[in-house]
Amino acid sequence: MEFFEVIHTQRSIRRFKPDPIPDGEIWALIDAAIKAPSGSNQQPWIWMVVRDAAKRHAIAEATRRYMESAGRFEEMERAAETVQDPSRKRSVRGAVEFFRDVAAAPVLIIPCLVSVTSPVTDPRTLLAGSSIYGAVQNLMLAARAMGIGTVLTTFNQFIEDSLRIELGIPADVVPTCIVPVGYPDGQRFGPTTRKPAEAVTYWDGWGSANSRG
Amino acid sequence: MEFFEVIHTQRSIRRFKPDPIPDGEIWALIDAAIKAPSGSNQQPWIWMVVRDAAKRHAIAEATRRYMESAGRFEEMERAAETVQDPSRKRSVRGAVEFFRDVAAAPVLIIPCLVSVTSPVTDPRTLLAGSSIYGAVQNLMLAARAMGIGTVLTTFNQFIEDSLRIELGIPADVVPTCIVPVGYPDGQRFGPTTRKPAEAVTYWDGWGSANSRG
Repeated sequence: MEFFEVIHTQRSIRRFKPDPIPDGEIWALIDAAIKAPSGSNQQPWIWMVVRDAAKRHAIAEATRRYMESAGRFEEMERAAETVQDPSRKRSVRGAVEFFRDVAAAPVLIIPCLVSVTSPVTDPRTLLAGSSIYGAVQNLMLAARAMGIGTVLTTFNQFIEDSLRIELGIPADVVPTCIVPVGYPDGQRFGPTTRKPAEAVTYWDGWGSANSRG
Repeated sequence: MEFFEVIHTQRSIRRFKPDPIPDGEIWALIDAAIKAPSGSNQQPWIWMVVRDAAKRHAIAEATRRYMESAGRFEEMERAAETVQDPSRKRSVRGAVEFFRDVAAAPVLIIPCLVSVTSPVTDPRTLLAGSSIYGAVQNLMLAARAMGIGTVLTTFNQFIEDSLRIELGIPADVVPTCIVPVGYPDGQRFGPTTRKPAEAVTYWDGWGSANSRG
Protein backbone atom coordinates (compact mmCIF):
# COMPACT_ATOMS: atom_id res chain seq x y z
CA MET A 1 0.00 0.00 0.00
CA GLU A 2 0.98 3.59 -0.55
CA PHE A 3 2.44 5.17 2.57
CA PHE A 4 0.04 8.09 3.03
CA GLU A 5 -2.97 5.88 2.39
CA VAL A 6 -1.91 3.75 5.36
CA ILE A 7 -1.35 6.82 7.55
CA HIS A 8 -4.67 8.41 6.64
CA THR A 9 -6.78 5.27 7.06
CA GLN A 10 -5.39 3.84 10.31
CA ARG A 11 -8.27 3.44 12.72
CA SER A 12 -8.86 1.71 16.05
CA ILE A 13 -10.42 -1.71 15.46
CA ARG A 14 -12.12 -3.26 18.50
CA ARG A 15 -14.18 -6.09 16.97
CA PHE A 16 -12.19 -9.02 15.69
CA LYS A 17 -12.86 -12.25 13.84
CA PRO A 18 -11.68 -15.28 15.84
CA ASP A 19 -9.44 -16.40 12.95
CA PRO A 20 -5.81 -16.88 13.97
CA ILE A 21 -3.11 -14.60 12.56
CA PRO A 22 -0.38 -16.64 10.80
CA ASP A 23 3.07 -16.55 12.43
CA GLY A 24 4.55 -14.93 9.32
CA GLU A 25 2.22 -11.96 9.66
CA ILE A 26 3.05 -11.52 13.34
CA TRP A 27 6.77 -11.53 12.51
CA ALA A 28 6.12 -8.92 9.80
CA LEU A 29 4.43 -6.69 12.39
CA ILE A 30 7.37 -6.99 14.78
CA ASP A 31 9.92 -6.53 11.99
CA ALA A 32 8.19 -3.21 11.26
CA ALA A 33 7.99 -2.24 14.94
CA ILE A 34 11.70 -2.66 15.62
CA LYS A 35 12.73 -0.37 12.75
CA ALA A 36 11.55 2.61 14.81
CA PRO A 37 14.14 4.76 16.55
CA SER A 38 14.95 4.42 20.26
CA GLY A 39 17.25 6.40 22.56
CA SER A 40 20.88 5.68 21.57
CA ASN A 41 19.44 2.88 19.40
CA GLN A 42 19.24 0.71 22.51
CA GLN A 43 16.02 -1.01 21.39
CA PRO A 44 14.91 -1.41 25.01
CA TRP A 45 12.02 -3.68 24.17
CA ILE A 46 10.55 -7.13 24.40
CA TRP A 47 7.45 -7.88 22.30
CA MET A 48 5.25 -10.28 24.23
CA VAL A 49 2.86 -12.07 21.88
CA VAL A 50 -0.04 -13.75 23.68
CA ARG A 51 -2.01 -16.26 21.64
CA ASP A 52 -2.58 -19.03 24.17
CA ALA A 53 -6.34 -19.16 24.87
CA ALA A 54 -5.99 -19.84 28.62
CA LYS A 55 -3.63 -16.88 29.06
CA ARG A 56 -5.81 -14.58 27.00
CA HIS A 57 -8.86 -15.58 29.01
CA ALA A 58 -7.02 -14.98 32.30
CA ILE A 59 -6.12 -11.48 31.09
CA ALA A 60 -9.71 -10.88 29.97
CA GLU A 61 -11.03 -12.06 33.33
CA ALA A 62 -8.65 -9.78 35.28
CA THR A 63 -9.72 -6.88 33.07
CA ARG A 64 -13.45 -7.55 33.52
CA ARG A 65 -12.95 -7.91 37.29
CA TYR A 66 -11.18 -4.54 37.44
CA MET A 67 -13.75 -2.80 35.24
CA GLU A 68 -16.62 -4.15 37.34
CA SER A 69 -15.10 -3.47 40.74
CA ALA A 70 -14.13 0.07 39.74
CA GLY A 71 -17.58 0.78 38.30
CA ARG A 72 -16.03 1.56 34.94
CA PHE A 73 -18.66 -0.19 32.83
CA GLU A 74 -21.45 1.90 34.38
CA GLU A 75 -19.33 5.02 33.98
CA MET A 76 -18.72 4.31 30.29
CA GLU A 77 -22.36 3.47 29.67
CA ARG A 78 -23.38 6.77 31.24
CA ALA A 79 -20.81 8.53 29.05
CA ALA A 80 -22.25 6.81 25.97
CA GLU A 81 -25.71 8.12 26.97
CA THR A 82 -24.66 11.74 27.44
CA VAL A 83 -22.12 12.16 24.66
CA GLN A 84 -23.57 13.99 21.62
CA ASP A 85 -21.16 13.25 18.80
CA PRO A 86 -22.41 10.04 17.09
CA SER A 87 -18.92 8.82 16.19
CA ARG A 88 -17.72 9.34 19.79
CA LYS A 89 -20.88 7.59 21.06
CA ARG A 90 -20.17 4.55 18.88
CA SER A 91 -16.58 4.59 20.02
CA VAL A 92 -17.53 4.53 23.74
CA ARG A 93 -20.10 1.75 23.13
CA GLY A 94 -17.48 -0.20 21.21
CA ALA A 95 -15.05 0.23 24.10
CA VAL A 96 -17.57 -1.17 26.60
CA GLU A 97 -18.15 -4.22 24.42
CA PHE A 98 -14.40 -4.62 23.90
CA PHE A 99 -13.56 -4.49 27.63
CA ARG A 100 -16.21 -7.12 28.42
CA ASP A 101 -13.98 -9.64 26.67
CA VAL A 102 -10.55 -8.54 25.54
CA ALA A 103 -9.78 -12.20 24.75
CA ALA A 104 -12.08 -11.88 21.72
CA ALA A 105 -8.93 -10.74 19.94
CA PRO A 106 -6.96 -13.80 18.79
CA VAL A 107 -3.66 -12.13 19.66
CA LEU A 108 -2.64 -9.63 22.34
CA ILE A 109 0.74 -7.96 21.86
CA ILE A 110 2.26 -6.41 24.97
CA PRO A 111 5.33 -4.27 24.25
CA CYS A 112 7.55 -4.15 27.34
CA LEU A 113 10.34 -1.73 28.28
CA VAL A 114 13.42 -3.50 29.57
CA SER A 115 16.28 -1.96 31.53
CA VAL A 116 19.09 -0.56 29.47
CA THR A 117 22.48 0.53 30.71
CA SER A 118 22.95 4.07 29.47
CA PRO A 119 21.46 6.59 29.60
CA VAL A 120 19.70 5.45 32.73
CA THR A 121 16.11 6.46 32.14
CA ASP A 122 13.39 5.58 34.62
CA PRO A 123 11.04 3.43 32.50
CA ARG A 124 7.99 4.91 34.24
CA THR A 125 8.65 8.41 32.91
CA LEU A 126 7.33 10.23 29.87
CA LEU A 127 10.71 10.28 28.13
CA ALA A 128 11.05 6.49 28.32
CA GLY A 129 7.92 6.40 26.17
CA SER A 130 9.88 7.95 23.30
CA SER A 131 11.75 4.64 22.99
CA ILE A 132 8.69 2.40 22.67
CA TYR A 133 5.49 4.07 21.48
CA GLY A 134 6.97 5.00 18.08
CA ALA A 135 7.70 1.30 17.58
CA VAL A 136 4.14 0.47 18.67
CA GLN A 137 2.85 2.90 16.07
CA ASN A 138 4.99 1.21 13.40
CA LEU A 139 3.42 -2.11 14.41
CA MET A 140 -0.12 -0.74 14.15
CA LEU A 141 0.53 0.96 10.81
CA ALA A 142 2.04 -2.25 9.43
CA ALA A 143 -1.04 -4.12 10.61
CA ARG A 144 -3.31 -1.67 8.80
CA ALA A 145 -1.18 -2.05 5.62
CA MET A 146 -1.76 -5.82 5.88
CA GLY A 147 -5.51 -5.54 6.54
CA ILE A 148 -5.10 -6.50 10.20
CA GLY A 149 -6.91 -4.53 12.90
CA THR A 150 -5.34 -3.21 16.12
CA VAL A 151 -6.19 -0.76 18.89
CA LEU A 152 -3.83 0.98 21.27
CA THR A 153 -4.96 0.42 24.84
CA THR A 154 -3.40 1.12 28.24
CA PHE A 155 -5.55 -1.09 30.46
CA ASN A 156 -2.30 -2.85 31.35
CA GLN A 157 -2.09 -0.20 34.09
CA PHE A 158 -5.15 -1.72 35.81
CA ILE A 159 -4.07 -5.36 35.64
CA GLU A 160 -0.31 -5.14 35.87
CA ASP A 161 0.01 -7.63 38.74
CA SER A 162 -2.10 -10.18 36.84
CA LEU A 163 -0.02 -9.68 33.70
CA ARG A 164 3.19 -10.26 35.63
CA ILE A 165 1.88 -13.47 37.19
CA GLU A 166 0.23 -14.82 34.04
CA LEU A 167 3.17 -14.10 31.73
CA GLY A 168 6.12 -14.22 34.15
CA ILE A 169 7.13 -10.61 33.49
CA PRO A 170 10.10 -9.68 35.75
CA ALA A 171 9.81 -6.82 38.27
CA ASP A 172 12.23 -4.53 36.41
CA VAL A 173 10.36 -4.86 33.10
CA VAL A 174 7.46 -2.48 32.39
CA PRO A 175 4.47 -3.38 30.19
CA THR A 176 3.75 -0.18 28.23
CA CYS A 177 0.41 -0.95 26.57
CA ILE A 178 -1.69 -3.81 25.20
CA VAL A 179 -2.37 -4.04 21.47
CA PRO A 180 -5.14 -6.51 20.57
CA VAL A 181 -4.60 -7.83 17.05
CA GLY A 182 -7.01 -9.58 14.70
CA TYR A 183 -8.86 -9.39 11.40
CA PRO A 184 -11.59 -6.73 11.61
CA ASP A 185 -15.12 -8.06 12.10
CA GLY A 186 -17.43 -5.62 10.36
CA GLN A 187 -15.40 -2.50 11.17
CA ARG A 188 -13.76 -0.66 8.31
CA PHE A 189 -10.53 1.25 8.28
CA GLY A 190 -10.53 5.09 8.14
CA PRO A 191 -10.51 7.94 7.25
CA THR A 192 -10.80 9.29 10.79
CA THR A 193 -11.73 12.71 12.09
CA ARG A 194 -9.28 14.95 13.88
CA LYS A 195 -9.03 18.57 14.91
CA PRO A 196 -7.44 20.33 11.91
CA ALA A 197 -3.67 20.81 11.92
CA GLU A 198 -4.15 24.59 11.88
CA ALA A 199 -5.86 24.37 15.30
CA VAL A 200 -3.01 22.46 16.94
CA THR A 201 0.09 24.04 15.38
CA TYR A 202 1.92 27.10 16.65
CA TRP A 203 4.71 28.83 14.76
CA ASP A 204 7.75 30.25 16.58
CA GLY A 205 5.83 30.92 19.80
CA TRP A 206 2.93 29.75 21.94
CA GLY A 207 -0.40 30.89 20.47
CA SER A 208 1.04 32.00 17.11
CA ALA A 209 -1.19 30.37 14.54
CA ASN A 210 -0.50 30.48 10.82
CA SER A 211 -3.02 30.05 8.07
CA ARG A 212 -2.46 27.39 5.47
CA GLY A 213 -1.46 29.70 2.58
CA MET B 1 6.26 5.60 -1.66
CA GLU B 2 5.32 2.07 -0.71
CA PHE B 3 4.53 1.75 2.99
CA PHE B 4 7.06 -0.91 3.98
CA GLU B 5 9.83 0.82 2.04
CA VAL B 6 9.29 3.90 4.21
CA ILE B 7 9.25 1.81 7.42
CA HIS B 8 12.39 -0.11 6.50
CA THR B 9 14.44 2.91 5.39
CA GLN B 10 13.64 5.44 8.13
CA ARG B 11 16.92 6.56 9.65
CA SER B 12 18.06 9.33 11.97
CA ILE B 13 19.36 12.27 9.93
CA ARG B 14 21.56 14.72 11.86
CA ARG B 15 23.18 16.76 9.06
CA PHE B 16 20.88 19.12 7.23
CA LYS B 17 21.07 21.46 4.27
CA PRO B 18 20.18 25.04 5.27
CA ASP B 19 17.39 25.16 2.64
CA PRO B 20 14.01 26.08 4.12
CA ILE B 21 11.17 23.56 4.14
CA PRO B 22 8.10 24.94 2.32
CA ASP B 23 5.03 25.56 4.49
CA GLY B 24 3.03 23.00 2.51
CA GLU B 25 5.49 20.25 3.43
CA ILE B 26 5.40 21.17 7.10
CA TRP B 27 1.59 21.02 7.03
CA ALA B 28 1.79 17.60 5.37
CA LEU B 29 4.03 16.36 8.20
CA ILE B 30 1.60 17.59 10.83
CA ASP B 31 -1.42 16.27 8.92
CA ALA B 32 0.24 12.84 9.10
CA ALA B 33 1.19 13.22 12.78
CA ILE B 34 -2.34 13.99 13.95
CA LYS B 35 -3.83 10.87 12.33
CA ALA B 36 -2.16 8.77 15.04
CA PRO B 37 -4.31 7.47 17.88
CA SER B 38 -4.41 9.11 21.32
CA GLY B 39 -6.16 8.16 24.55
CA SER B 40 -9.92 8.60 24.09
CA ASN B 41 -9.03 10.41 20.84
CA GLN B 42 -8.31 13.52 22.90
CA GLN B 43 -5.45 14.64 20.66
CA PRO B 44 -3.66 16.25 23.63
CA TRP B 45 -1.05 17.97 21.49
CA ILE B 46 0.30 21.22 20.20
CA TRP B 47 2.91 21.08 17.43
CA MET B 48 5.36 23.92 17.94
CA VAL B 49 7.17 24.69 14.69
CA VAL B 50 10.31 26.78 15.21
CA ARG B 51 11.77 28.34 12.07
CA ASP B 52 12.72 31.82 13.31
CA ALA B 53 16.52 32.05 13.19
CA ALA B 54 16.88 34.01 16.44
CA LYS B 55 14.76 31.50 18.34
CA ARG B 56 16.59 28.52 16.86
CA HIS B 57 19.93 30.08 17.77
CA ALA B 58 18.78 30.73 21.33
CA ILE B 59 17.76 27.07 21.63
CA ALA B 60 21.10 25.98 20.14
CA GLU B 61 23.00 28.24 22.55
CA ALA B 62 21.10 26.87 25.59
CA THR B 63 21.85 23.33 24.37
CA ARG B 64 25.56 23.99 23.87
CA ARG B 65 25.79 25.67 27.28
CA TYR B 66 24.20 22.63 28.95
CA MET B 67 26.37 20.14 27.04
CA GLU B 68 29.53 22.05 27.96
CA SER B 69 28.72 22.65 31.61
CA ALA B 70 27.69 19.01 32.11
CA GLY B 71 30.83 17.74 30.39
CA ARG B 72 28.69 15.88 27.86
CA PHE B 73 30.81 16.69 24.81
CA GLU B 74 33.93 15.18 26.43
CA GLU B 75 31.87 12.20 27.58
CA MET B 76 30.54 11.58 24.06
CA GLU B 77 33.97 12.02 22.51
CA ARG B 78 35.40 9.44 24.92
CA ALA B 79 32.51 7.13 24.01
CA ALA B 80 33.28 7.61 20.31
CA GLU B 81 36.91 6.60 21.01
CA THR B 82 36.09 3.44 22.93
CA VAL B 83 33.10 2.16 21.01
CA GLN B 84 34.00 -0.69 18.61
CA ASP B 85 31.06 -0.91 16.23
CA PRO B 86 31.83 1.45 13.29
CA SER B 87 28.20 2.39 12.70
CA ARG B 88 27.75 3.21 16.40
CA LYS B 89 31.01 5.20 16.35
CA ARG B 90 29.78 7.28 13.40
CA SER B 91 26.49 7.79 15.17
CA VAL B 92 28.14 9.11 18.37
CA ARG B 93 30.45 11.39 16.35
CA GLY B 94 27.44 12.65 14.39
CA ALA B 95 25.62 13.34 17.65
CA VAL B 96 28.52 15.44 18.98
CA GLU B 97 28.55 17.51 15.79
CA PHE B 98 24.78 17.82 15.89
CA PHE B 99 24.66 19.05 19.51
CA ARG B 100 27.32 21.70 18.82
CA ASP B 101 24.70 23.52 16.74
CA VAL B 102 21.15 22.20 16.75
CA ALA B 103 20.12 25.39 14.87
CA ALA B 104 21.82 23.93 11.78
CA ALA B 105 18.42 22.34 11.15
CA PRO B 106 16.17 24.87 9.39
CA VAL B 107 13.15 23.73 11.41
CA LEU B 108 12.75 22.37 14.94
CA ILE B 109 9.41 20.76 15.72
CA ILE B 110 8.57 20.46 19.41
CA PRO B 111 5.47 18.31 20.09
CA CYS B 112 3.91 19.36 23.38
CA LEU B 113 1.44 17.53 25.62
CA VAL B 114 -1.41 19.74 26.77
CA SER B 115 -3.78 19.09 29.66
CA VAL B 116 -6.88 17.16 28.81
CA THR B 117 -9.92 16.70 30.96
CA SER B 118 -10.52 13.00 31.16
CA PRO B 119 -8.93 10.60 31.87
CA VAL B 120 -6.64 12.69 34.01
CA THR B 121 -3.19 11.41 33.15
CA ASP B 122 -0.09 13.02 34.59
CA PRO B 123 1.74 14.22 31.45
CA ARG B 124 5.11 13.34 32.97
CA THR B 125 4.34 9.62 33.12
CA LEU B 126 5.11 6.80 30.72
CA LEU B 127 1.45 6.27 29.80
CA ALA B 128 1.02 9.88 28.69
CA GLY B 129 3.69 9.09 26.11
CA SER B 130 1.27 6.71 24.39
CA SER B 131 -0.75 9.76 23.29
CA ILE B 132 2.13 11.64 21.63
CA TYR B 133 5.09 9.53 20.51
CA GLY B 134 3.04 7.53 18.01
CA ALA B 135 2.09 10.84 16.39
CA VAL B 136 5.75 11.88 16.42
CA GLN B 137 6.62 8.64 14.65
CA ASN B 138 3.94 9.36 12.01
CA LEU B 139 5.56 12.76 11.47
CA MET B 140 9.03 11.27 11.04
CA LEU B 141 7.80 8.52 8.71
CA ALA B 142 5.95 11.09 6.60
CA ALA B 143 9.14 13.15 6.41
CA ARG B 144 11.10 10.14 5.19
CA ALA B 145 8.40 9.45 2.56
CA MET B 146 8.89 13.04 1.35
CA GLY B 147 12.69 12.89 1.35
CA ILE B 148 12.95 15.08 4.44
CA GLY B 149 15.32 14.14 7.28
CA THR B 150 14.45 14.08 10.98
CA VAL B 151 15.89 12.74 14.21
CA LEU B 152 14.08 12.04 17.46
CA THR B 153 15.85 13.78 20.33
CA THR B 154 15.01 14.35 23.98
CA PHE B 155 17.46 17.14 24.82
CA ASN B 156 14.39 19.21 25.64
CA GLN B 157 14.79 17.70 29.13
CA PHE B 158 18.07 19.63 29.59
CA ILE B 159 16.86 23.02 28.36
CA GLU B 160 13.21 23.01 29.35
CA ASP B 161 13.36 26.37 31.17
CA SER B 162 14.97 28.02 28.14
CA LEU B 163 12.34 26.51 25.83
CA ARG B 164 9.54 27.85 28.01
CA ILE B 165 11.02 31.34 28.05
CA GLU B 166 12.00 31.45 24.38
CA LEU B 167 8.70 30.05 23.07
CA GLY B 168 6.26 31.13 25.80
CA ILE B 169 5.25 27.55 26.67
CA PRO B 170 2.82 27.58 29.63
CA ALA B 171 3.68 25.79 32.88
CA ASP B 172 1.04 23.08 32.44
CA VAL B 173 2.22 22.15 28.94
CA VAL B 174 5.01 19.57 28.58
CA PRO B 175 7.48 19.54 25.70
CA THR B 176 7.94 15.84 24.89
CA CYS B 177 10.88 15.85 22.45
CA ILE B 178 12.56 17.96 19.78
CA VAL B 179 12.50 16.85 16.15
CA PRO B 180 14.97 18.74 13.93
CA VAL B 181 13.73 18.76 10.34
CA GLY B 182 15.59 19.48 7.10
CA TYR B 183 16.76 18.07 3.79
CA PRO B 184 19.58 15.56 4.41
CA ASP B 185 23.10 16.86 3.73
CA GLY B 186 25.11 13.88 2.55
CA GLN B 187 23.39 11.31 4.78
CA ARG B 188 21.31 8.65 3.12
CA PHE B 189 18.19 6.96 4.38
CA GLY B 190 18.32 3.32 5.60
CA PRO B 191 18.21 0.36 5.79
CA THR B 192 19.22 0.33 9.45
CA THR B 193 20.51 -2.46 11.67
CA ARG B 194 18.53 -3.83 14.57
CA LYS B 195 18.60 -6.83 16.83
CA PRO B 196 16.53 -9.49 14.99
CA ALA B 197 12.86 -9.81 15.90
CA GLU B 198 13.47 -13.38 17.10
CA ALA B 199 15.77 -12.02 19.84
CA VAL B 200 13.22 -9.56 21.21
CA THR B 201 9.94 -11.48 20.92
CA TYR B 202 8.49 -13.84 23.51
CA TRP B 203 5.45 -16.01 22.92
CA ASP B 204 2.87 -16.58 25.66
CA GLY B 205 5.37 -16.15 28.49
CA TRP B 206 8.59 -14.41 29.47
CA GLY B 207 11.62 -16.11 27.91
CA SER B 208 9.61 -18.28 25.49
CA ALA B 209 11.25 -17.75 22.14
CA ASN B 210 9.85 -19.12 18.89
CA SER B 211 11.80 -19.78 15.75
CA ARG B 212 10.65 -18.20 12.52
CA GLY B 213 9.24 -21.35 10.92
